[in-house]
Amino acid sequence: MSRDLVERRLLPRISNPILSRLDDSAVLNATGRLAFTTDSYIVDPIFFPGGDIGRLAICGTVNDLSMVGATPIGLSLALIIEEGLPFQVLDRIMGSVQSTCAEAGVDVITGDTKVVNRGKADKLFINTAGVGTISGYINISGSNARPGDKILLNGGIAEHGIAVMTSREGLTFSSTIQSDCAPLNGIVKDLLEAAGSSVRSLRDPTRGGLATTLNEIAAQSGVSIMIEERAIPIDDGVRAACEMLGLDPLYVANEGKFIAVVAPEAADAALAALRHHPLGARACIIGEVVEGTKRRVTMHTRLGPTRLLSMLTGELLPRIC
Amino acid sequence: MSRDLVERRLLPRISNPILSRLDDSAVLNATGRLAFTTDSYIVDPIFFPGGDIGRLAICGTVNDLSMVGATPIGLSLALIIEEGLPFQVLDRIMGSVQSTCAEAGVDVITGDTKVVNRGKADKLFINTAGVGTISGYINISGSNARPGDKILLNGGIAEHGIAVMTSREGLTFSSTIQSDCAPLNGIVKDLLEAAGSSVRSLRDPTRGGLATTLNEIAAQSGVSIMIEERAIPIDDGVRAACEMLGLDPLYVANEGKFIAVVAPEAADAALAALRHHPLGARACIIGEVVEGTKRRVTMHTRLGPTRLLSMLTGELLPRIC
Repeated sequence: MSRDLVERRLLPRISNPILSRLDDSAVLNATGRLAFTTDSYIVDPIFFPGGDIGRLAICGTVNDLSMVGATPIGLSLALIIEEGLPFQVLDRIMGSVQSTCAEAGVDVITGDTKVVNRGKADKLFINTAGVGTISGYINISGSNARPGDKILLNGGIAEHGIAVMTSREGLTFSSTIQSDCAPLNGIVKDLLEAAGSSVRSLRDPTRGGLATTLNEIAAQSGVSIMIEERAIPIDDGVRAACEMLGLDPLYVANEGKFIAVVAPEAADAALAALRHHPLGARACIIGEVVEGTKRRVTMHTRLGPTRLLSMLTGELLPRIC
Repeated sequence: MSRDLVERRLLPRISNPILSRLDDSAVLNATGRLAFTTDSYIVDPIFFPGGDIGRLAICGTVNDLSMVGATPIGLSLALIIEEGLPFQVLDRIMGSVQSTCAEAGVDVITGDTKVVNRGKADKLFINTAGVGTISGYINISGSNARPGDKILLNGGIAEHGIAVMTSREGLTFSSTIQSDCAPLNGIVKDLLEAAGSSVRSLRDPTRGGLATTLNEIAAQSGVSIMIEERAIPIDDGVRAACEMLGLDPLYVANEGKFIAVVAPEAADAALAALRHHPLGARACIIGEVVEGTKRRVTMHTRLGPTRLLSMLTGELLPRIC
């Protein structure tokens, strides 16, 4: 039955020459520096406006590779399925895996399927890992930000977290807020072509949101960061939902946004490249890296005073990804 | 709390320069052919005689890399933890991850941790993925077996499955049967040094056991296989346990055994190399590849007649790995 499940329901969706060899490991060619990453996805509910756990699992790992400047060369897909999950649900998720892989231009090249008894898992958990290659001139790390660098963001924040939360809680607003879940490898490629080695750090603000991610970069690089509240794009509907729910959008998860820390002389070219891509139409420079051994993230608020943004403490939303 | 868990309980066990960068992907150097694999581990119980889910997760992925002739260069480790799992249990598992990594000579270089509400997972699930590099002369695949090739096995079968099952069911026998769970990269390295490009196929008989794995090789290579029952090593205690439980040891899972299909002229050198390694002391030639478009696996039994060994149908033991 397990073999049948894999051969009839899973493989047809994601078939490619490497995966189809069905050896214990996929084999592929690679040269130079390699990127390798993994994430498990346990999002609840597994379907939400703008995406589902399958799309999330592909985007999340493609994006983690993109955030070190790597071009994805292959993904793994490991399913933990709760006994009794309807086949049509699995089929729909695999359809989403397939279409998201096509969108990102990347293949699943190795995988695993496990089934656990009813009640021993919650419907479906997915782990993806990914490998990618990094071109010689690229040197991107959360530890490379330097004072004077500009901080770019490719669009509006907090959409994924609000989409999942409102769908989980059965809340309805005047308009449905869609998750921003998207593969970022294309827009990152455009950015690297435009700004090359001037790109110091890339990071996608998932769990913990924009404020937590900026704090991570400040801590890793040993710098402080100053951002402008008025420069940060937020959709009106998302802002309204955050207000009603008492959530600070700076701490709400994103799945199709990224921060780019770019040397000042390349910032305009980088911004133009982002805005030229459909996933960066609302891209902005939201602030800059400043001297500061205290590694603080500070925001000039709309109302005038500055506000210190700390790391998120406590989990805002469990099982958001 | 999530950050604290990772930094205080997980990272100290598996720290290394690549992992400690804490970027979205690990970055490492690689050249040539790359192997990439993944598996999730859902074994129940998480501790069993001879191992635990942590040891299993490291060995399983190291072994999948070894089975295409790759040298592991890095592993990922992704934990899905059920809320309420005692810290001492997590610490013990991470200690096991650490010691097994040291035994295999491989590092965890990227990871992820998720926590789900109580009742939404069963204590702990682990996914590992792995990358490895393959030397130029090696060409190993389940599809490379040819008539005349010898089939080698590095030791006694069915130990892992029986160890997990007896521990789960609270059964006691005169002696405790230990899982054979072990990293096979060292013994495979010795085999490849001795037999080089004469090694056609390698595969570890995990779920489905020896008989299912031989069927997979026969199907992939388009050949038949003939094995000798009397040549297959089985520990007396394991044989007795199988008889009492009504299980056929040919279909019971292993986690430290592998089948090597080797060209006939290199079989003696290959066998000597296996026997020289601690994990191959009981290595044997158990049969050979024969002509046969029906892709059958047949066994000469101890009693004389031959027996057709089919693929395992139906799951013998759920959650065995």
